[in-house]
Amino acid sequence: MVPLKCKGFRAGGVAAGIKKNGDLDLGLLVSDRPARVAAVFTKNRILAAPVKLNRERVKTGMARAVIANAGNANCANGSEGMAAAIAMTAAAAHALNVPDEQVLAASTGVIGAPFPNQKVAAAVPVLVGALDEDGILDLARAIMTTDTRPKAGVREAVVNGAPYRIVAVAKGAGMIRPDMATMLCFACTDADVALDDLQAALKRSVDLSFNRITIDGDTSTNDTVILMANGASDVKIDTIEAKASFQQQLDDLLMDLARQMVRDGEGVTKVVDLTVRGARSNDDAWRIADTISHSPLVKTAFFGQDANWGRIFAAAGRAGVELDPDRLDLYFDDVQMTKGGTGCGDEAEAKATAVLKQPEFSVTLDLNLGEGTAGMLTCDFSLDYVKINADYRS
Amino acid sequence: MVPLKCKGFRAGGVAAGIKKNGDLDLGLLVSDRPARVAAVFTKNRILAAPVKLNRERVKTGMARAVIANAGNANCANGSEGMAAAIAMTAAAAHALNVPDEQVLAASTGVIGAPFPNQKVAAAVPVLVGALDEDGILDLARAIMTTDTRPKAGVREAVVNGAPYRIVAVAKGAGMIRPDMATMLCFACTDADVALDDLQAALKRSVDLSFNRITIDGDTSTNDTVILMANGASDVKIDTIEAKASFQQQLDDLLMDLARQMVRDGEGVTKVVDLTVRGARSNDDAWRIADTISHSPLVKTAFFGQDANWGRIFAAAGRAGVELDPDRLDLYFDDVQMTKGGTGCGDEAEAKATAVLKQPEFSVTLDLNLGEGTAGMLTCDFSLDYVKINADYRS
Repeated sequence: MVPLKCKGFRAGGVAAGIKKNGDLDLGLLVSDRPARVAAVFTKNRILAAPVKLNRERVKTGMARAVIANAGNANCANGSEGMAAAIAMTAAAAHALNVPDEQVLAASTGVIGAPFPNQKVAAAVPVLVGALDEDGILDLARAIMTTDTRPKAGVREAVVNGAPYRIVAVAKGAGMIRPDMATMLCFACTDADVALDDLQAALKRSVDLSFNRITIDGDTSTNDTVILMANGASDVKIDTIEAKASFQQQLDDLLMDLARQMVRDGEGVTKVVDLTVRGARSNDDAWRIADTISHSPLVKTAFFGQDANWGRIFAAAGRAGVELDPDRLDLYFDDVQMTKGGTGCGDEAEAKATAVLKQPEFSVTLDLNLGEGTAGMLTCDFSLDYVKINADYRS
Repeated sequence: MVPLKCKGFRAGGVAAGIKKNGDLDLGLLVSDRPARVAAVFTKNRILAAPVKLNRERVKTGMARAVIANAGNANCANGSEGMAAAIAMTAAAAHALNVPDEQVLAASTGVIGAPFPNQKVAAAVPVLVGALDEDGILDLARAIMTTDTRPKAGVREAVVNGAPYRIVAVAKGAGMIRPDMATMLCFACTDADVALDDLQAALKRSVDLSFNRITIDGDTSTNDTVILMANGASDVKIDTIEAKASFQQQLDDLLMDLARQMVRDGEGVTKVVDLTVRGARSNDDAWRIADTISHSPLVKTAFFGQDANWGRIFAAAGRAGVELDPDRLDLYFDDVQMTKGGTGCGDEAEAKATAVLKQPEFSVTLDLNLGEGTAGMLTCDFSLDYVKINADYRS
């Protein structure tokens, strides 16, 4: 098994007292040399202070560190929020002896609560002292909110006989569509990647992974994905083959983390790979997949292990896309549930019910109109989701 | 109190055995003379058979009766579904001795289950025998699905010294946005209203009432609102004043039924009057109100009696509408919770928490950008909602 680390990067997490329960809540990822940086941020019109700060700082294309806290989103705090984000990065920069503007910040937690500046300032020196090349999991723990498990992964590949790695941590845990909760992902690689290539690779991987569980433009105030590349492996990603390899590894890693997020979604008991195919266009397929995967009625039926395909039809029908009700074929895994828009009967229903008893299964809706397809990773909607979110601030 | 009836109309409900629990499940509303008819139907692309049938039949502008069942949506049943809808109306037409094409149909319940033709055919003569001018509440009961209470209302007004009435029944009970469950409403009046006026008045009232809890274009496969006017009161609605009076009574009645629906929404513990104002346009305000009122995070916070305004901000920010985060003022009832985009502090929070402990309250978000406003009637998202919908078919 490839160890969860990558050359020239150290990470760590400490309990700064922001979370009421005393868990790790302040994390740091540091490159021992200047690294190129690519990032993708939320499209929400209301931006948390650290997101505003990062959007400016990543324009240089260089970063040395990311400092992140859980327990407070540092959003809707006005000018004091921006001052707090700047102070958090300045404290880390000072302790690391790097330029302020090469430190990025991320926060996740309650919106609109005053930011605990003093707790963070007091904890930063301890956090820097705790940095370790094996500290990735502590960083993953420090950014958890309602997540029940830390999420991390590593991929290793070889270019011209020389290995490089990509390591990433993430947190999610909202009901997936994760616009419902902050999604953070920090990735680092010891490969040497040109800045344009780094940004393009990250954008593509995010579209394939986190944007299959989230919706473009529909994100929380704090969502942030950051990828740093420090070249410490001396592996240059500069040929078509090497770029393809890097893309493949990054895709695979971020899809892995996206699936970890859904599996650990708040109250999730079912992970569902939804595919809509046979649409007139990919965009049509996407709109239907979006509507189905966010329908509370569909999601509660998944929770109830109920092959209630009528709800899937009803959601498809209200997606605002032309379809022919008499051509709809629906499958749970490989069990055909409807043919030409009507049910396949009791035997199919019994088989489908067995499919839904599994913790993970697929749902495929074929419109039989064209070649458009779209995939989404979604989940059920359970009693625990409501419990978790009704009690979140208390 | 005005009695729940109106001249020249009889109604009733019987237990045809469609619902497993033996409750009333087949209802009928009949005019003793030809009535003008107006209707509004779902915009879902997948239409239940009775909706398809009604859309044709209302083109004549005349109807004598509506027959409706609960327990089976008669949707996605192919040509057998259409045959069943036709048979249901034919049975009623035969027993009533009126033309088939003047009987409308409505169904609500599970999608894709074979329609219980024989049960309906056997029950129709009993149902016709049970018709009574005081039978409106039985009709209201017969169309209930997960509704816990029948929903009905009456308004009486006077034109030139002569009284007329409008009576209506409805069922809803899905989590409101009622695209999540079928919304049916049957109304009748003994006023004499021209067909064009009748349709215009109904459209306007539906926009003010059911479309404040639903979303245009986003409805179930079966949603149906029917209004019959038989003129039995001899009150003509033919002056500006009389038309205004009729509109006002109809608006008031349907808004009353819409509020009854939200109060009886599945698992609802909080009814929330949401207003978005100060937007650049009414459309902007509407998009933000729509996003807030359907956010699971906002709705679970209402259930938790948690004045978690950050979630309301986050939802507003992802509505795809330009806004200035530093101008947002938020109120729970008359308690100002944020000013200029930041929180008003602990005292406001304590007062707001008291507001949220009430069963009904208002939430007002002021963007301070313009004159656009929109209102929605919404509700919380509770443990019982999930329980009800996870168990619906079992």
